[in-house]
Amino acid sequence: MRVIGLDPGLRRTGWGVIEMTGSRLSHVANGVCKSEGDDLAERLLSLCLGLRGVFAEYRPAAAAVEQTFVNRDGAGTLKLGQARGIAMLVPAEAGLSVGEYAPNAVKKCIVGVGHADKKQVAHMVRIHLPGAVLAGPDAADALAVAICHAHHLQSAGHLAAALARAGA
Amino acid sequence: MRVIGLDPGLRRTGWGVIEMTGSRLSHVANGVCKSEGDDLAERLLSLCLGLRGVFAEYRPAAAAVEQTFVNRDGAGTLKLGQARGIAMLVPAEAGLSVGEYAPNAVKKCIVGVGHADKKQVAHMVRIHLPGAVLAGPDAADALAVAICHAHHLQSAGHLAAALARAGA
Repeated sequence: MRVIGLDPGLRRTGWGVIEMTGSRLSHVANGVCKSEGDDLAERLLSLCLGLRGVFAEYRPAAAAVEQTFVNRDGAGTLKLGQARGIAMLVPAEAGLSVGEYAPNAVKKCIVGVGHADKKQVAHMVRIHLPGAVLAGPDAADALAVAICHAHHLQSAGHLAAALARAGA
Repeated sequence: MRVIGLDPGLRRTGWGVIEMTGSRLSHVANGVCKSEGDDLAERLLSLCLGLRGVFAEYRPAAAAVEQTFVNRDGAGTLKLGQARGIAMLVPAEAGLSVGEYAPNAVKKCIVGVGHADKKQVAHMVRIHLPGAVLAGPDAADALAVAICHAHHLQSAGHLAAALARAGA
């Protein structure tokens, strides 16, 4: 089962695709969609087309998006929100439900603590996915989101199996 | 020339279409796209499909979106940002550049002052567009954005004509 993770941003949206085979995870691809254009609408369209291209190429069966950190900078939050709207739309267009994980939850899942820095996240992503060449910190964060979602799906699967056994 | 105005919101996005013939404006249609679905991605997709339907039906040649009021409520700003991303994307998909107007600029254009209330805006929209039946305050705001954008396009047209005459 292919899982995609997204780390949205107006300038750069990181993406990472992994393959989940039972409890084994392996790296498929990762990268960054950069938005181009003079005005906001053009940039959002450029981001949307880039992400649609990634979905068309890798055809993930599950998707998750990093929850945005809301801070006091209202204008920054708004920009990020607009990019995040596109990052949520593209998987929904592909018929997928979209998992959402707070940055701290992703770090805790990958590194074991909720306040790890970007280097630690990238390091642990490389350990989880041997051989992955990371396209930068946004792509590393996106792979971390994908790993976190895969673990969540595995736990949910185990729970469903356990409930089925208990009912049998 | 058909002009559409949009007043974005995650639950309800108002839209209003007007026809600009020289300096005359007339009402074409207005309404509200409500987002449906259990999770955020579904709601954004529902909003996107609703707006695409409006664009397909009325085929506007120009579009403008109300600029979002950024407040201290970061979570609210983020939600609005996500809806606004969709409201910017749909006209860009239709090949239009998208005008953006702050709420105060819209009110000043329609009512003459920047701090008018919703009732005043709706009242002046009805005066600008005789016969328009408003589908609610969000639709009235959207028509106000469309009128504001039409005035802007007319001024830009007059300026271009004056510059052409001055050059002749």
